[in-house]
Amino acid sequence: MRRQADGAHPDLQAALEHLLAAGGKRIRPTLCLLIGRMLAAPRQRLITLGAAVELLHTATLVHDDLIDGSLLRRGSATLNAQWSPPATVLTGDFIFARAAKLAADTDHLPLMKLFAETLAIIVNGELTQLFAARGLASRENYYRRIYAKTASLLEMTTCAAAMISPAGEDVVEAMRMFGYHLGMAFQIVDDVLDFTGAQDEVGKPVGSDLLQGLITLPTLYYIETHPSDVGVRALLEGRYLFEKEAMEVLIERIAASDSIEKAMEEAREHVRLALEKLAATPEGEERSALEELARYTVNRRF
Amino acid sequence: MRRQADGAHPDLQAALEHLLAAGGKRIRPTLCLLIGRMLAAPRQRLITLGAAVELLHTATLVHDDLIDGSLLRRGSATLNAQWSPPATVLTGDFIFARAAKLAADTDHLPLMKLFAETLAIIVNGELTQLFAARGLASRENYYRRIYAKTASLLEMTTCAAAMISPAGEDVVEAMRMFGYHLGMAFQIVDDVLDFTGAQDEVGKPVGSDLLQGLITLPTLYYIETHPSDVGVRALLEGRYLFEKEAMEVLIERIAASDSIEKAMEEAREHVRLALEKLAATPEGEERSALEELARYTVNRRF
Repeated sequence: MRRQADGAHPDLQAALEHLLAAGGKRIRPTLCLLIGRMLAAPRQRLITLGAAVELLHTATLVHDDLIDGSLLRRGSATLNAQWSPPATVLTGDFIFARAAKLAADTDHLPLMKLFAETLAIIVNGELTQLFAARGLASRENYYRRIYAKTASLLEMTTCAAAMISPAGEDVVEAMRMFGYHLGMAFQIVDDVLDFTGAQDEVGKPVGSDLLQGLITLPTLYYIETHPSDVGVRALLEGRYLFEKEAMEVLIERIAASDSIEKAMEEAREHVRLALEKLAATPEGEERSALEELARYTVNRRF
Repeated sequence: MRRQADGAHPDLQAALEHLLAAGGKRIRPTLCLLIGRMLAAPRQRLITLGAAVELLHTATLVHDDLIDGSLLRRGSATLNAQWSPPATVLTGDFIFARAAKLAADTDHLPLMKLFAETLAIIVNGELTQLFAARGLASRENYYRRIYAKTASLLEMTTCAAAMISPAGEDVVEAMRMFGYHLGMAFQIVDDVLDFTGAQDEVGKPVGSDLLQGLITLPTLYYIETHPSDVGVRALLEGRYLFEKEAMEVLIERIAASDSIEKAMEEAREHVRLALEKLAATPEGEERSALEELARYTVNRRF
């Protein structure tokens, strides 16, 4: 990943270095390497694919943080906190270009198409969220949003790792579904942690989604059982910006309600389905690690 | 191209429609179709490639206009003149993604790699220009900049059109060089027109590059022969922003000097070299049209 700015402008090299040094969980390349090794994919192409996926993810984060005006990510200053908006836009573009080049270097055309299509899904999802009416209580909308935001890229990663292996179509499809369910679980837990996580661990204020009028799964469950709650009414009637106190009470109520457990139950169901998909793959340390990673998704604290 | 936003958010569809309706010269797809037809490339892949190249170009313009704060392009309001910066960044990203998908649809991996590498060259060039010291009088720097800005994409277009045809490697290389020289000529003429063009035809104020401290070929020639000109000194000493009057005088002097003709002579030399590369290709209406297009490059008024 670091080598991708070789020969580019020194400031661009420094920017990429800064982004990569901030770390992150590196779940996408980990998934890629574990699945690829489990299915005997060629090692070098697997590493190339892992780097392509992580850089694609990094590029979307660079533009996201600029758009949201976020100043911190993974405990480090974001690029837009240090650079001008023009430099940040172009750095994101450059990383997209390098991610696309790495994806092409896997020498697999269907993978390249999947890669480009996934980027379009992610970006369309962000635009849809940008334009969407806030205070929208729709389960369908929620699932579509978290698919675009998180599950689509995890699905692509696990699918692509299987695609460059000698495994048959049924295994490729099973791995795609594994990534899909893992991604859905991952984002639901992220949305739960927005209510229950410790601020210093999660890295953002508790209830930050709701304070922006963004309705996630715990809130959806709470609305179903408490339709006349004062905070719920304020949220659904689009007054969340003007009734911050009511929103803070609502956040506390949701965090203390059984809506959290109901949302976690959905996440666990996705993990169960993901683990089911692994059943058809070769036993061994890679599969064990993938199972552990799937369970970690619903047991993590940040 | 229009179909690339099918299924996306309605506002995104409208944005793409707006961008495409503004038109433009469509030189890149024209080059692609003419060269591909001349070399008997498969028609459908050629159209796909032409759309990929034009959309890549469009995406870079969307981000460029946002970065420069430009409000007009091709006589139409730019996207950033109507939309928020976040929506504009994401629309550019979406168009990149669709361009990459179309490039992958040509089913040609080396082409896909070339496509991604060219995007990296273009973006690195923009970043370098963004960070570069202004008032930099370096010919090497100028040629590198116009290669990244314009010639790299034209070179890629003509090369890619030949790559998907049955033509041999020598023809592919000749077409690459044809696009390179055409692109260099095209940008030099653009830079000349910045001094000599009518504002209403070129669509921006006369001398706009110089007013921003950007030194192009006519200025380079003028500096060589008039090193102690007051305006030249102000420019090279970085006082161009504070001595606007001196800059306006300098612009007039350059426009009336033989620097214009010297720059045009360089552009014509590139066209001559481009035409030479066509000599090895099959005669016919496509080749005639390509020759005409090459000559038009140095005879146009906007």
